[in-house]
Amino acid sequence: MENGVLVKIISKLLRVGASEKLEKILRTSSPSEIQLIFSKLDASQKSAFFNLLFHQKVVSQTIRDLSQEVLEEIFHNISLEVALDLIQKLQPDDAADLMGKLPQEQSQWFLDKLDPVKKTQILKLLTYGKNTAGGIMNPNFFTLSQDSTINKAIELLRTKTQLEMVFYLYVVDEGRHLMGIVSLRQLLMSQGTVLLKDIMDSNVISITVNQPQTEVAQLIKRFNFLAIPVVDENKKLLGVVTIDDVINVIQEEATQDLYRMSGVEKDERVFTPIRSSIKNRAPWLIINLATAVLAAQVVGFFEGTIQKVVMLAAFLPVVAGMGGNAATQTLTIIIRGIALGELTFKEMKKALIKEIWVGVANGVINGIIVAVIAYYWKGMPMLGFVLMLAMIGNLFVAGAAGVLVPLGMKALKIDPAIASTVIVTTFTDCFGFFFFLGLSTLLIKYLM
Amino acid sequence: MENGVLVKIISKLLRVGASEKLEKILRTSSPSEIQLIFSKLDASQKSAFFNLLFHQKVVSQTIRDLSQEVLEEIFHNISLEVALDLIQKLQPDDAADLMGKLPQEQSQWFLDKLDPVKKTQILKLLTYGKNTAGGIMNPNFFTLSQDSTINKAIELLRTKTQLEMVFYLYVVDEGRHLMGIVSLRQLLMSQGTVLLKDIMDSNVISITVNQPQTEVAQLIKRFNFLAIPVVDENKKLLGVVTIDDVINVIQEEATQDLYRMSGVEKDERVFTPIRSSIKNRAPWLIINLATAVLAAQVVGFFEGTIQKVVMLAAFLPVVAGMGGNAATQTLTIIIRGIALGELTFKEMKKALIKEIWVGVANGVINGIIVAVIAYYWKGMPMLGFVLMLAMIGNLFVAGAAGVLVPLGMKALKIDPAIASTVIVTTFTDCFGFFFFLGLSTLLIKYLM
Repeated sequence: MENGVLVKIISKLLRVGASEKLEKILRTSSPSEIQLIFSKLDASQKSAFFNLLFHQKVVSQTIRDLSQEVLEEIFHNISLEVALDLIQKLQPDDAADLMGKLPQEQSQWFLDKLDPVKKTQILKLLTYGKNTAGGIMNPNFFTLSQDSTINKAIELLRTKTQLEMVFYLYVVDEGRHLMGIVSLRQLLMSQGTVLLKDIMDSNVISITVNQPQTEVAQLIKRFNFLAIPVVDENKKLLGVVTIDDVINVIQEEATQDLYRMSGVEKDERVFTPIRSSIKNRAPWLIINLATAVLAAQVVGFFEGTIQKVVMLAAFLPVVAGMGGNAATQTLTIIIRGIALGELTFKEMKKALIKEIWVGVANGVINGIIVAVIAYYWKGMPMLGFVLMLAMIGNLFVAGAAGVLVPLGMKALKIDPAIASTVIVTTFTDCFGFFFFLGLSTLLIKYLM
Repeated sequence: MENGVLVKIISKLLRVGASEKLEKILRTSSPSEIQLIFSKLDASQKSAFFNLLFHQKVVSQTIRDLSQEVLEEIFHNISLEVALDLIQKLQPDDAADLMGKLPQEQSQWFLDKLDPVKKTQILKLLTYGKNTAGGIMNPNFFTLSQDSTINKAIELLRTKTQLEMVFYLYVVDEGRHLMGIVSLRQLLMSQGTVLLKDIMDSNVISITVNQPQTEVAQLIKRFNFLAIPVVDENKKLLGVVTIDDVINVIQEEATQDLYRMSGVEKDERVFTPIRSSIKNRAPWLIINLATAVLAAQVVGFFEGTIQKVVMLAAFLPVVAGMGGNAATQTLTIIIRGIALGELTFKEMKKALIKEIWVGVANGVINGIIVAVIAYYWKGMPMLGFVLMLAMIGNLFVAGAAGVLVPLGMKALKIDPAIASTVIVTTFTDCFGFFFFLGLSTLLIKYLM
């Protein structure tokens, strides 16, 4: 739908109060469309629109997807009382998410006005690391004592309609220590007088509150769980992570590797304000500039050779480009392998041998092609030979550095996706130019 | 755990038949560990190990994650009867997945030996596109007539213990057209004599069988669904996609963008055999070689200028590298934006203006830095000035091409992640060299 038309329709629907139709439209709108619509509405409409946004089911998803800037703009445009009322209605984990995205003073203002139970829950959640099990868990869940009957459990469940996504009932002792779980399906299939302790699965897989969110995601994925209980060191139940939270984690982590390898901030989106984008991307470019100047020094070292055979200059970008591309291929495989837990230090040697072979083989293939091109273009067989050797050497370096650098980063507890690209391409640039211009210098009399 | 020790423990457990302990170990092993363990076992152990692998709950996950090569090796090492028996036990969607990964003759052999119902189901599934709703749905699901009572539904449900992940009951008419859904929770909370049609939600969101799997994933994610029904054009129910299938889709799609941008095949893993890796990666390198030669021609065009001021050669890699890095940043944001549905053609102009501004601003920042470096290194203010202008021009091209090329690809129905990188870096290389060497030629008398 054309965006202008969409805004008009929405203004009209807001005016006549047709909230059901509006909800339907909003559910199928992307965050960027929501952002656009919001920016086109007038003040009173903004408030009504916001209200609607927070009432519908997709709200938690929308909050997660909207950027910090848009959320701040939204909160700037509605009355604080409306906002407060709506925050009160959010699940604690979603509310904590939102608080984390708002400016410090603003979130403090809201926290002070919230009811004390909710405030305590949110503050507790905010103490856990953002990327840990505690940071994504929901502290509201459904617990029962092990001596309850099925009938009692069903009766209690009926009163808990506001809980999101109940899949399992958690059976705890008096100290809220996790004793077992009962699935809805088991509840449905058992006699009403049976005790929970007789049907519960007491071999529960749980996760401790400080474990990284990626481990939560891996567990849920591997075991096809719908939810996983989060406990402290003494097995006391603290919260539950549900599968919908994990979908976001999986998507974020995969996007993060891509972003980090390209030198882009995790939070940057297509319509992040220009100033933030410039600030986000400049450091990466400046680091790359520094390494490019390093490579330029290598070339500068051979200025005498280039002076004699100036056509060598034309092939410098070929040498650098091929090394960089081969290195990126190896890095992509190795960094994803590390992220997905498929590559460990023990297998380093095997991976190293493989990547070196792949590099050398592709060096030979591309070396022959470029040698033929050089021969026909410049009529010089020796230039072709030098280029071929330089290509093989450079792709050897690309394969070796592409394995060793990310694994070295990992050993130093640095995310390999962050720094490996720039380090490895510095290696391929410098060694590539050194091989190419060094060989040319040695064989200069055949090149003139 | 050290892999050698792990293999010994597993051999021993296989010998004594301690399958529970073994299952526990296998569940927490990664596909690459499973592959390694498998390769170290002798023939009889391989068969027992395989049997175990297919009996445990994580089997569908394992099949999805194991590479084609490992699966072929596994199937090469066990008796066909054992394999057949186990395939028979798989859910149809997992079996179809597996058939798709085996060599044609082998999967045909298995299909002919399977029971006819299963065979028909699998063949039907194989006719749907691999990346469509049909390709990932499970054709086994739980349907009921709208005139059933709750008690009847619960009774039927008890008999269907082999169904994976029942979250909703699908209510259909005589022609199997989808009429509504009832959740397990609703079932639990209603009186036994109530009719399904009185509690069912008839406003069901479904997906047609040929829609792409990414749309299925977006719907499930947006609405926090656990499962979504798949229908044909006449709303006849054909299958169900569950949330665990979608987790794989989301992970695959994000990885795919990263892989395609780096010129790596989607299926390549750390230990893909060397021959396959060479074959997979060579075409990308050859294409890049062709475009690098194109850029080399631009440099060759200015050989006269380089002959006069040979130090210009040293700065060629700086110009090319900065253009390539800035272009990759823009491409990453734009390609992910397109993939996540955040960027449409209508917003192209806005994105274009933004990226050009970001490019020019970072061009000015890095241009000034490199000008200062050139001044101190070579003592030539004019060289610095030329480099700065070239950098600004090149980062302008990076921003503009970084938006226009992927959106153009999308308009041509080509995945922007596949071809954009090579096209855009060709632009930045050629224009960068042209700006830098062209300006140098114009201002040559100030550079000598």
